Amino acid sequence: MIREKSPSRLDPVAFNDVHFTDTFWAPRIKLVHEQTIPFEYQQCKETGRIDALRLDWKPGQEPEPHIFWESDVAKWLEAASYSLAVHPDPDLDGLVDQVVALLAGAQQPDGYLNVYFTVVEPGRRWTDLRDAHELYCAGHLIEAGVAHFQATGKRQLLNVVRRYADYIATVFGREPDKKQGYGGHEEIELALVKLYRVTGDEKYLRLSQYFVDERGRQPYYFEQEAQERGTPGFFGTIFPERDQEQAKSREYNQSHLPVREQTEAVGHAVRAMYLYCAMADLAREVGDESLAQACERLWQHLTTKRMYLTGGIGSSLSNEGFTSDYDLPNEAAYAETCAAVGLVFWAHRMLHLECDGRYADVLERTLYNGVLSGISLDGKKFFYVNPLASSGNAHRYEWFGCACCPPNIARLLASLGQYVYSQGPSDLVVHLYASGQAQLQVGGQALTIQQSTQYPWDGAVRLAIEQLAEPSAFTVKLRIPGWCREPAVRMNGMEVDVAANLEKGYVAIERTWQASDVIELDLPMDIQRMYAHPAVAADRSCTALQRGPIVYCLEGVDHASASLGELELPLSQPLQATFHPDLLDGVVALHGMALVPNQAAWDGLLYTTSLPQMQETPLTAIPYYAWDNREPGEMRVWIREQRPSL
Amino acid sequence: MIREKSPSRLDPVAFNDVHFTDTFWAPRIKLVHEQTIPFEYQQCKETGRIDALRLDWKPGQEPEPHIFWESDVAKWLEAASYSLAVHPDPDLDGLVDQVVALLAGAQQPDGYLNVYFTVVEPGRRWTDLRDAHELYCAGHLIEAGVAHFQATGKRQLLNVVRRYADYIATVFGREPDKKQGYGGHEEIELALVKLYRVTGDEKYLRLSQYFVDERGRQPYYFEQEAQERGTPGFFGTIFPERDQEQAKSREYNQSHLPVREQTEAVGHAVRAMYLYCAMADLAREVGDESLAQACERLWQHLTTKRMYLTGGIGSSLSNEGFTSDYDLPNEAAYAETCAAVGLVFWAHRMLHLECDGRYADVLERTLYNGVLSGISLDGKKFFYVNPLASSGNAHRYEWFGCACCPPNIARLLASLGQYVYSQGPSDLVVHLYASGQAQLQVGGQALTIQQSTQYPWDGAVRLAIEQLAEPSAFTVKLRIPGWCREPAVRMNGMEVDVAANLEKGYVAIERTWQASDVIELDLPMDIQRMYAHPAVAADRSCTALQRGPIVYCLEGVDHASASLGELELPLSQPLQATFHPDLLDGVVALHGMALVPNQAAWDGLLYTTSLPQMQETPLTAIPYYAWDNREPGEMRVWIREQRPSL
Repeated sequence: MIREKSPSRLDPVAFNDVHFTDTFWAPRIKLVHEQTIPFEYQQCKETGRIDALRLDWKPGQEPEPHIFWESDVAKWLEAASYSLAVHPDPDLDGLVDQVVALLAGAQQPDGYLNVYFTVVEPGRRWTDLRDAHELYCAGHLIEAGVAHFQATGKRQLLNVVRRYADYIATVFGREPDKKQGYGGHEEIELALVKLYRVTGDEKYLRLSQYFVDERGRQPYYFEQEAQERGTPGFFGTIFPERDQEQAKSREYNQSHLPVREQTEAVGHAVRAMYLYCAMADLAREVGDESLAQACERLWQHLTTKRMYLTGGIGSSLSNEGFTSDYDLPNEAAYAETCAAVGLVFWAHRMLHLECDGRYADVLERTLYNGVLSGISLDGKKFFYVNPLASSGNAHRYEWFGCACCPPNIARLLASLGQYVYSQGPSDLVVHLYASGQAQLQVGGQALTIQQSTQYPWDGAVRLAIEQLAEPSAFTVKLRIPGWCREPAVRMNGMEVDVAANLEKGYVAIERTWQASDVIELDLPMDIQRMYAHPAVAADRSCTALQRGPIVYCLEGVDHASASLGELELPLSQPLQATFHPDLLDGVVALHGMALVPNQAAWDGLLYTTSLPQMQETPLTAIPYYAWDNREPGEMRVWIREQRPSL
Repeated sequence: MIREKSPSRLDPVAFNDVHFTDTFWAPRIKLVHEQTIPFEYQQCKETGRIDALRLDWKPGQEPEPHIFWESDVAKWLEAASYSLAVHPDPDLDGLVDQVVALLAGAQQPDGYLNVYFTVVEPGRRWTDLRDAHELYCAGHLIEAGVAHFQATGKRQLLNVVRRYADYIATVFGREPDKKQGYGGHEEIELALVKLYRVTGDEKYLRLSQYFVDERGRQPYYFEQEAQERGTPGFFGTIFPERDQEQAKSREYNQSHLPVREQTEAVGHAVRAMYLYCAMADLAREVGDESLAQACERLWQHLTTKRMYLTGGIGSSLSNEGFTSDYDLPNEAAYAETCAAVGLVFWAHRMLHLECDGRYADVLERTLYNGVLSGISLDGKKFFYVNPLASSGNAHRYEWFGCACCPPNIARLLASLGQYVYSQGPSDLVVHLYASGQAQLQVGGQALTIQQSTQYPWDGAVRLAIEQLAEPSAFTVKLRIPGWCREPAVRMNGMEVDVAANLEKGYVAIERTWQASDVIELDLPMDIQRMYAHPAVAADRSCTALQRGPIVYCLEGVDHASASLGELELPLSQPLQATFHPDLLDGVVALHGMALVPNQAAWDGLLYTTSLPQMQETPLTAIPYYAWDNREPGEMRVWIREQRPSL
């Protein structure tokens, strides 16, 4: 039942096979190492998350260990592990070892590893799968164990989480002596696939399959469990309102239907992403076409009906998730950073079910916009929610009581290398463009590829094959981004017919490759005016500016003459793109003229029969990801557009 | 200190001096008599509001009398009294007498009259002026007593409320043995002026002055009182959230500053309106210029920064009131029916401080739109809140736990006659246009005036002087509505130079009048496109349609082809006005073509670089007041407008 590797099968590359040398990602990955990871450790330490692992908490003592504290520590460990592989750092390595030792010490004789249910509510292990996040925390620990092993070669944490996973496999399943449940916050499913891949032990794959397949079957486990428990659930004590209105709904945690029958992205957005990741993983590992089809339906629904232009997803605060089709409010957007991170994870997995530019386009859009907005330029402040408009009150914070987002963005950035390429027996695929080197395996041959580009500010990309021992026949597939209207490709200086060689968003060059072969891409970055589906009420009469993969916004600090909502951009107004090396760590900003109403003409008037008189004012748009890094104020992605009459 | 009547002073006319014979108001006033008043009595009876007056409630018994139940009964009595004068009805007269007898029976030996603080919390009389609505209920009882006397000549209720007012005068004031407080919900202040006018007893005027003047002085009474009480207040038990966030703020009940220092309309909108009414009343009665100036400042602020196009006011649910300048969301609009009723009351009073069309324009706008929307065409369902847009979930209800709005709109409509004219020693002023007769007094002479018009559907108005015993010199002032661009006036067939005779929105015709004199007005009702101040975020890129005094809206039932928000009305699109006798009890509807996006072109797309392709679709706009009387669905006042580029 395990899928055999087929000749056309693509594999992801390891995060540390790719080394960024560009001016966009490399400094950010360094910043994560130098600032974000130490800062997040300090936050974990100060809030009690680290010391809780000593299991010496006594009733009444503050702070009381929290049900999802391990997940924060685990994601920090995962980020720190990736970062160690890219930036060797004995101090951090030692710190990671200390935390690993604490985790090992907190593991119970039977393998169980959860502080809350060991010291705070020791009698209630596995009694609230819906809300108590036990399997979720376990999943993050497993991911951390896998990452720590992959990054450092050390097995201590991997062994700890294997023992935990082995224990979990004795608790859950369809056998009569087991609990036939699954986690209320998906995560362990995708983690078990990772554990299977690194250990080769199929037990973990089977357990992941069980959790995914069991989800949403009737009778509903969470409802039986709540009845048996007779309590409102732990979650209720954290967000009582959310619990009442949302958490009890089946859709909130995607347990409303068996996963293969799900057709719409619903409920809590992060939960949904982690589930869909696992579904894609399993579809790939076991060749399960019905799971792949379910993924494709959910992808299509999400990306054509419920996704922000930034790749942000989950528009509502009330369930931290999805509402209804085309309900994408801008100022009230939730668009949690973790959900955007999860969408990148899922897109990456979809790309390895089928190499289709649709997935990579969303991956790129989300990465450069909805994910990257989550972290400040100094790497030490975070958005939990990522609105697409602000009247001036939305700002990044240093930490959150529910601190899922800061380490999530850190682990994504610290392992970003894995998203650039895929490799296979006969293919080398380039998904993302950024200067750097990569060591890849194609058709059993090792090769080095060198990218040179000013992406995302310029679309000229040079790819050079280096260190290929002997000439070798394979296909290089280069992504032509969906935003690019007139791509050009040259192979060793000769024009390649892009249209003739384009397949699902990738231009394929099949030849016998040798060291010193050079591909040049030109992906002209026009400034594009984007429009949303007419059913998106919040974006009507509006346009958004995009250039290359970067979505732009206006900030109040650049527009003193009027409130941003009063600005109108005429349809015919030309805009210029200019690189400003000193602005926001170096960005291309967009400049032009907009119109603002002449407020003086309205003195003492509230309603009139005269159209507002407009006057010109300079407009400056900056990358959305970089907003709220200067003077606080208004922000807007969608700008009202003045359009000619029919 | 009581102001002498000056020769130029204008007086309101009595509500029963004017008899409507038109097809717009007369049927509505009849409906209030035949349907609304009996229906509201039945609701008061069924909910326990009537029987509570027997004072036989026992602890634990359901329903428990509520702190503001008397106000509902009092407003019903007031409406019923007015209605009795216009539509004699022995059954209703008897029912009113029964309720009056119940009230008389509930009055305590000392004159006090409040069920809640007599039977539920007998020891806590006057301990929570801020929230317990005692003085508010007293005010409504006083208004009812005055109305019942004016309408029927019966003194029983008037005597009851005089005794109550006399008692209140012994409790409140600046003398050392009195409470130096005032009501948290203004109302008694304006009621005491009415009681003064009908009794001539200056004590009531002085008490009203005391309440108004004391308000907002330091130390703040409500804060002292809350401290003494040491309880969160009765109000907190009804709307705990509102209590926490808003009710405790000084602005909520306009006690943040002495009234003469107030410059902005703030807080709970109904409270504000009733206070401003009393301020205008006192400015007039005692010639207090500083109060008149405060009223003018507040008027200017409210009507140029915080009023909906419909005359609705108070945009926020959280405080049932005002937020910040230009914050006028459409779907989330609160715009309580009672607040619109209160604005009509205040505008009417401002008009009698100074005969200026600005006041009458707001009165007319509010009456035909923001007030009238509050009641269904069958007279038995009510809007408490009056949004300017709905996605389909806003509907009128039969009754409310807090049932202030239904009897408030009933008492306004039942006494509508008083708003049509003013009279003075040398002036007859026409504010509103509607077919009917009026018996007026001008310069000591009785006269009858007859109006004939199809207003508000047509702006042609014929005014004939009838039954004037002998020729008499005075000025007739005819309001030229602010919406009218090209008015024409003929006096006995001769053209009057409107511009030359226009003074603050009224064209003045000074002559020696005699019976059979005829004035003809032509107030052409163009369809007007209205625009809101650019700072009103919700109305940007939008227009609203108005014709004469009627504000229009779109309803989903007339537009099956698209969601209303998707419609765009080109700037140059002509619209036609058509009277439909069978539509919504007879209305002029507006018709034209609008544009809707071709949704088919968006299949599978969420964001593109192409502007939506638009196609034509018929547009029908109906009067805003008449919405939600057909098939439930969407509604929108502000329509997106397609405008040419600069």
